Amino acid sequence: MASLRKPYYGAAYYPEDWPLEQIDQDIALMKDAGLNVMRVGEFAWSRMEPVEGQYDFEWLHLVVNKLGEAGFGVIMCTPTCTPPIWVAQHYPECLVVDENGVKMQHGARRHACPNSAMYRELCRRIVTKMAEEFGNNEYIIGWQIDNELFTVGRRGCCCPECHQKFQLTLKERYGTIDNLNEAWCLNLWSQAYSSFGEIPIPKSTIWHHPSLITAWMDFQSDSYVDFCSMQADLLHELTSHPVGTDMMPTGGVNYAKIHQKLDMVQFNHYTPPERLHKVTFWFDFIRTLCDRPFWNTETATCWNGSTTANGYKEEGFCRVNTWLPIALGGEACLYWLWRSHWAGHELMHGSVVSSSGRPLHMIDEVREVSRGFEVSSEFLSNTEVVKPKLALHFSCFEWHLLGAQPMVRDFRYIDQLIDRYYVPMTERQLRVDVIDPSASLDDYDVVVSPFVAALDESGLRERLKKWIEDGGTWIAGPLTDIRTMDCTKFTHSPFGSLEEWTGVYCKYQIPGDPRDFAMRYSDGTEALGKIWYDGFVQNGAEVLATYTEGPLSGLAAIVRKRMGKGQIILLGTVPDPDHLVGIISEAGSSELGPYFEASSNVLVVPRKGNGMEGAVVIELKNEPGKIELPCSYKDLLTGQSLKGELDVPGYTVMVLQKES
Amino acid sequence: MASLRKPYYGAAYYPEDWPLEQIDQDIALMKDAGLNVMRVGEFAWSRMEPVEGQYDFEWLHLVVNKLGEAGFGVIMCTPTCTPPIWVAQHYPECLVVDENGVKMQHGARRHACPNSAMYRELCRRIVTKMAEEFGNNEYIIGWQIDNELFTVGRRGCCCPECHQKFQLTLKERYGTIDNLNEAWCLNLWSQAYSSFGEIPIPKSTIWHHPSLITAWMDFQSDSYVDFCSMQADLLHELTSHPVGTDMMPTGGVNYAKIHQKLDMVQFNHYTPPERLHKVTFWFDFIRTLCDRPFWNTETATCWNGSTTANGYKEEGFCRVNTWLPIALGGEACLYWLWRSHWAGHELMHGSVVSSSGRPLHMIDEVREVSRGFEVSSEFLSNTEVVKPKLALHFSCFEWHLLGAQPMVRDFRYIDQLIDRYYVPMTERQLRVDVIDPSASLDDYDVVVSPFVAALDESGLRERLKKWIEDGGTWIAGPLTDIRTMDCTKFTHSPFGSLEEWTGVYCKYQIPGDPRDFAMRYSDGTEALGKIWYDGFVQNGAEVLATYTEGPLSGLAAIVRKRMGKGQIILLGTVPDPDHLVGIISEAGSSELGPYFEASSNVLVVPRKGNGMEGAVVIELKNEPGKIELPCSYKDLLTGQSLKGELDVPGYTVMVLQKES
Amino acid sequence: MASLRKPYYGAAYYPEDWPLEQIDQDIALMKDAGLNVMRVGEFAWSRMEPVEGQYDFEWLHLVVNKLGEAGFGVIMCTPTCTPPIWVAQHYPECLVVDENGVKMQHGARRHACPNSAMYRELCRRIVTKMAEEFGNNEYIIGWQIDNELFTVGRRGCCCPECHQKFQLTLKERYGTIDNLNEAWCLNLWSQAYSSFGEIPIPKSTIWHHPSLITAWMDFQSDSYVDFCSMQADLLHELTSHPVGTDMMPTGGVNYAKIHQKLDMVQFNHYTPPERLHKVTFWFDFIRTLCDRPFWNTETATCWNGSTTANGYKEEGFCRVNTWLPIALGGEACLYWLWRSHWAGHELMHGSVVSSSGRPLHMIDEVREVSRGFEVSSEFLSNTEVVKPKLALHFSCFEWHLLGAQPMVRDFRYIDQLIDRYYVPMTERQLRVDVIDPSASLDDYDVVVSPFVAALDESGLRERLKKWIEDGGTWIAGPLTDIRTMDCTKFTHSPFGSLEEWTGVYCKYQIPGDPRDFAMRYSDGTEALGKIWYDGFVQNGAEVLATYTEGPLSGLAAIVRKRMGKGQIILLGTVPDPDHLVGIISEAGSSELGPYFEASSNVLVVPRKGNGMEGAVVIELKNEPGKIELPCSYKDLLTGQSLKGELDVPGYTVMVLQKES
Repeated sequence: MASLRKPYYGAAYYPEDWPLEQIDQDIALMKDAGLNVMRVGEFAWSRMEPVEGQYDFEWLHLVVNKLGEAGFGVIMCTPTCTPPIWVAQHYPECLVVDENGVKMQHGARRHACPNSAMYRELCRRIVTKMAEEFGNNEYIIGWQIDNELFTVGRRGCCCPECHQKFQLTLKERYGTIDNLNEAWCLNLWSQAYSSFGEIPIPKSTIWHHPSLITAWMDFQSDSYVDFCSMQADLLHELTSHPVGTDMMPTGGVNYAKIHQKLDMVQFNHYTPPERLHKVTFWFDFIRTLCDRPFWNTETATCWNGSTTANGYKEEGFCRVNTWLPIALGGEACLYWLWRSHWAGHELMHGSVVSSSGRPLHMIDEVREVSRGFEVSSEFLSNTEVVKPKLALHFSCFEWHLLGAQPMVRDFRYIDQLIDRYYVPMTERQLRVDVIDPSASLDDYDVVVSPFVAALDESGLRERLKKWIEDGGTWIAGPLTDIRTMDCTKFTHSPFGSLEEWTGVYCKYQIPGDPRDFAMRYSDGTEALGKIWYDGFVQNGAEVLATYTEGPLSGLAAIVRKRMGKGQIILLGTVPDPDHLVGIISEAGSSELGPYFEASSNVLVVPRKGNGMEGAVVIELKNEPGKIELPCSYKDLLTGQSLKGELDVPGYTVMVLQKES
Repeated sequence: MASLRKPYYGAAYYPEDWPLEQIDQDIALMKDAGLNVMRVGEFAWSRMEPVEGQYDFEWLHLVVNKLGEAGFGVIMCTPTCTPPIWVAQHYPECLVVDENGVKMQHGARRHACPNSAMYRELCRRIVTKMAEEFGNNEYIIGWQIDNELFTVGRRGCCCPECHQKFQLTLKERYGTIDNLNEAWCLNLWSQAYSSFGEIPIPKSTIWHHPSLITAWMDFQSDSYVDFCSMQADLLHELTSHPVGTDMMPTGGVNYAKIHQKLDMVQFNHYTPPERLHKVTFWFDFIRTLCDRPFWNTETATCWNGSTTANGYKEEGFCRVNTWLPIALGGEACLYWLWRSHWAGHELMHGSVVSSSGRPLHMIDEVREVSRGFEVSSEFLSNTEVVKPKLALHFSCFEWHLLGAQPMVRDFRYIDQLIDRYYVPMTERQLRVDVIDPSASLDDYDVVVSPFVAALDESGLRERLKKWIEDGGTWIAGPLTDIRTMDCTKFTHSPFGSLEEWTGVYCKYQIPGDPRDFAMRYSDGTEALGKIWYDGFVQNGAEVLATYTEGPLSGLAAIVRKRMGKGQIILLGTVPDPDHLVGIISEAGSSELGPYFEASSNVLVVPRKGNGMEGAVVIELKNEPGKIELPCSYKDLLTGQSLKGELDVPGYTVMVLQKES
Repeated sequence: MASLRKPYYGAAYYPEDWPLEQIDQDIALMKDAGLNVMRVGEFAWSRMEPVEGQYDFEWLHLVVNKLGEAGFGVIMCTPTCTPPIWVAQHYPECLVVDENGVKMQHGARRHACPNSAMYRELCRRIVTKMAEEFGNNEYIIGWQIDNELFTVGRRGCCCPECHQKFQLTLKERYGTIDNLNEAWCLNLWSQAYSSFGEIPIPKSTIWHHPSLITAWMDFQSDSYVDFCSMQADLLHELTSHPVGTDMMPTGGVNYAKIHQKLDMVQFNHYTPPERLHKVTFWFDFIRTLCDRPFWNTETATCWNGSTTANGYKEEGFCRVNTWLPIALGGEACLYWLWRSHWAGHELMHGSVVSSSGRPLHMIDEVREVSRGFEVSSEFLSNTEVVKPKLALHFSCFEWHLLGAQPMVRDFRYIDQLIDRYYVPMTERQLRVDVIDPSASLDDYDVVVSPFVAALDESGLRERLKKWIEDGGTWIAGPLTDIRTMDCTKFTHSPFGSLEEWTGVYCKYQIPGDPRDFAMRYSDGTEALGKIWYDGFVQNGAEVLATYTEGPLSGLAAIVRKRMGKGQIILLGTVPDPDHLVGIISEAGSSELGPYFEASSNVLVVPRKGNGMEGAVVIELKNEPGKIELPCSYKDLLTGQSLKGELDVPGYTVMVLQKES
């Protein structure tokens, strides 16, 4: 399917739930809607292996062949998210156990334990069989492993196999129980263990040690990474197609770790209109994880739904929601789902066509997007998103750490990271790569690292130091470098290295609860900080802002210090959006952007490659916007030539190619 | 007690909780309050059978005889709601098990399983004994079975006996497991079962299939129906009195099914003032279920209460709350309770007299109601509520179906049915019978059927078709005829028959969340729909309203089509109150009403019979109201002659007899 | 340590969590902060007895000696709140079991059952060992038993040992099961038990009898009392120091009962600024429980915190929060904690110095308080709080009773007692002793007893009667004397004795939900009542207020009746603050106060003794206040002479000594 048009455009298709003879009618409707990719097999284990060891792939070959012959690319999914009833009946040890010891029931999803040896063996068998059947099928363009891996409930699976593996993991990490006792300060509250076998799963109803909770949640994440990698290894061995696993914009499983064995990111999201300008955070993140462009494997055409239909979206939403992943570097957008289920847990979910095969009300938008993909395919295929010089750290490990010890009342890491750092940057037209601590820093001028409590993740401390000394600008804090990898405090200083690197002395630390404190910037402007307040004695560092009230009055709030060829800007508090972006812009080169002038509701993503240049422009809030085009561009969607200041009406999409 | 004055007026009496010698004092107080019926025995099993097989009814004979000799009618209750401690101790298999496998404890109520064979046997024994003792007692005017049967917790009883019986019920219904798998689309999510023995009880904490949930909840309902019918059969065999079971205005147990074996509806309600105008829905419903007039077996004199006293009511509330069931066709109103408990779970509940035997503050209202019953007894006994020509469908099965799959976010069937259909009709003085799908349609001109998703309940589809073809006007929708009895969608059309019957084509369907859409009626007026939006291509049907915005713009919202001698009016959305009532009124004959002109807070219930004519009038909201009397009436409560436009002050009751 | 300066000033110190060599640095910092007492050992069982039967106290001797030699007094704590892991591993029967039968996990606190015979034995051993080691140590100034004893979860420990002991307790109390059945009215709902062995632990998820719930909660309280008394007996035998147990301002464990075996009250509180004027209730209570002055063993220097830091406090809060217990009769104030934890469940809690040994932002306030304690030490040590002539009843038993049966919707005993009685008095400068029902009444002119439902607690009925007849003024109600000690109603009257004592007849009783009723006082003023409404026929009593609306209109709301040389003022409802204080003031002698005129935000606590006189003055709300000094005082904190009307700025503290 090398010739399949990109961007791929498609949907999830569940032929196992319909009469097979209906497929021709479906294919005709799919073509009429303008789609060219279908995702199949996701939950169909019981149809592939209705009785243990008895396989039936005939129907699936028919489906793949029919689709392929009609010009569709097929994404093949492993169905391990929904084991058949015989798994629960014959191998109850495979079922997830909650923190109260209760086994999950058959009839839902994600109810099998990622660490169960028996479940892994059963998965190995079905995936091997599938790979043998479809591993070299020419119509298949890629594989999806399982579906939306995440830690079930508040503590994931708490079965005996998980428990034992967790204890072994800690033994590997700490060697002796005394080391663990010491690392976690377990004289406190007489907690000290005398063997690894005593370490409990930390129930959410018991007041447990935050280091234990983080270790457990991280272990759960690793368990799914390991489970996924097992399938990835199999598929890489037996198939010729790229492999991914579709994940949601939620915590629990570490994105960076799980993609070490995968070829691409597959991403599912169901973002409501009022949060659409925030989901770009995730696209700016997943673009950085793999070499191949990501696929948006699931999103809604209109409303979400399970047994209720939730959230009609206004005209144009389908358009911008479909274009968004493409604009930000993705290569595919697929809807969930093609045809609404006629029964079951999600029978009210929006789709492309209804259970009775009638296109839904946004069908014209679907067709319009398809035409748009068609006319801009060449430009999009030849160009890539211009790599930003600016990066923002985001760590799934911190998500666990700050979940177990949020530092300040009501602090939620991901929300604050997006609302206080990411959105201020992007609404002021700075383009940013959101990166994991393990990511290389080489390509960036400026790296912003708020809330990176444990700076030793993936050796970041040493790599950062070198990168700064080589000329990088690091904007750090607050709540950065204040915890060890054991999730405990440093005791020589509030920080691991930050006092040493900047020379400052942190005199006081105050939580931003219940109130904010004011400060004055070196340009004389005044503004409030947010969330947390470190008060520094400067000791030779340059002071960018000083507190003007409270016990911190007169102490430095933001300082700058050169280190080698580079510099550190240390934020003692979270600045307001304007000052934050001011500090970033001033710190970096002109390559940081903004590349375009546009109003805050307008996303502009520059692209370049193969001699072409341009940008994809999307209005995100269904409000009037503006953009200033410095030279002449052709909007590939309309064919119009555009230049200068333009109105960007609500939910507009433009694919601008620079005219020579 | 044939000569006992009607309406009956009384209370629940628990002599087992007091010194027996106190009964004479109580009877004197009862007489002074103006009551003539007492309900006894309800929870007194341990007093009747303190040790298994050892019975003591002497005290109860004394109570019945004392009451009877003093001129009171007695309602005798079977005490099966509260088994003695020896049941829990010797037969723990009788106890309800919750969905987590935890047995309920002795010490509360309703903790025995309706399907437990042992519990049924123990109930059979005590009920048989009671019937032998009191089955022909002349003072007894009727029996009450158990008390407020309802499904405990979120999933009812989940004991092994229930589980097994549920699986057998499904086997009886579907024959083979493949039939069930197919009917519920269980290829989806690899759910397919290989035997009925694998089907679980659907825990509320697991994301389960809505068809399974509805089947389970319906099974729980049937279990209580069956348990009640067992007692009813016994009592019918051994006693000469009419038999009922007192039920609350709540879901769970199917009203229509349980009353197939009962002689009358017994009804308990504790409606707060702000909802009093809605509880009439229930009276308009229970009036249609049995041939005998219903009894309001429980309501509060003043505040409700358990260990707190909740909700003082303003003067006049006791009066109108007591008259309301009588006005709407009931034959009795009893308070819960006669004398406040001096201990226990409900010791703060309002009553007629306090624990120390002192009348409560509303005693004068009680006496006034008694005098009112007296002076209007002849008129009320000779007349009946004029049977409306208008009916509204209400289905307990739909309550389960729409509970498991509410279709639209936050949709609650009973609330929407009352608020969007029932109240608009009644506040505009249309009188309506609320009927179960099993009810005969013969007496009605117009039947309104919103939210009847499964039109095949009780063969309604065929009966409706015939009734329409014979001349009926059916006003259907939205959300009507969109599900099979398996709670799944039709796949040939969004509807089972509605497209076929009306000729329309439903182009789009849109949930009314988060916003409403406007439409224009054929008379040029504009208004918003609510909840759900079907957009029709008319195909020859008459268009009564057309959408004017959104993707439905230009499609028909409400259509009318003749079928045989009758017609169907198909509502694609829920109309506003005025247009709804306009459509109904225009559709039916003049016999539909309104019979009187009155303000919306004034309930007017016409009565007729034995040459007499009139109405009971009740102001429901403690606000000033108006009524227009077209001719001269005598208010039996005051003796006044009334005619023309009258003020109806807050909480007024009038019993109007037409003057010749 | 007889010469140790009072008030004691200190903190909780956990040397087991730090390198031992750090102690000298800590001691230097402690001295610099101005502290002179440290509390140690609290949770260090695993450090004292790391393996069962193997003890290590060397480190603790080192700590105590280092501290003592540096001039610090030491409070030694028994560590029984946090048993080592070997307790959970070898003796799982020691673990608390929740009401669902689930054992608690090691790793938190308070997870051992107070009734476990094995746990008691293990506690006996470690406490004995500690007492042998430190029982006569000259640096130790007192012992603390365990930490914050309270009933875990909603029902405390529900293990088999607790259950059996509860049944035995009821058997001791009632003798025969028939007595219990009768006392609790267990014919109701067929609840009657046939043996004590059948009585269940009342789960919070089951609708249980309020008498059973109260009995259970009271039993749980007694279990902790018994557990604490066991340790107290041991310590009294083996040590020469005074003994207490530190408790929180929460319900669950009966303060009066537990202090029968203790030498002093130790009290922990973490009151936020907006409630600071209410925590004085607790100081006015604990001052009355023991002969020795109480110790405030824990409070925060700044924010509270576990894994989040919650609630920065404005400048001055630390000062007034530290002075408050001293002002109200305490002898010590200690912070929790000295040095912030560097790991664990509470690593974000405020402290005196940070984990890296840096003083927190409020360090200057700490030093200022220390100097203040120094300069006022002589005055404070020679004087005592002037004992009020006014008392307010507060009963931990009522807290259980009214928790199980709150009488009126949303009624919460402790909140209403403080908000409707205590605060109105104190804000109008009446000083009050808050007393347990067991307390002697001899010293008081006026006793106020609202919500004392069960007047027979501690023989209060008889003692009150005698005290009134001897000249006391008793202000009672509402909701007083309306329950037996079985938590049931009286049946001869709504009250046990109140009608008999006052001669009135309570005609109606109405809950104050959802609205209040108005009344007119004998001086012609009008005001609303609150919460509850008794309407009295006066029958010769003097009427102080009469209802003017609703069904109570014309009935007496507040009456006064002489009894012997004294009088009863019976409140049928809760008066507004002004009328309440008016009634109290008018009823008592001039000795009741107010002693000073001051604004409501200013606390003034008069002191006297050894020829000295004066007062401690504290502004509680960080608002401007006023005080009128009738003669000349010296403020010991500033050295200034003061007289007449003075401004009291926000968060001011003054120690005023009368100048001769």
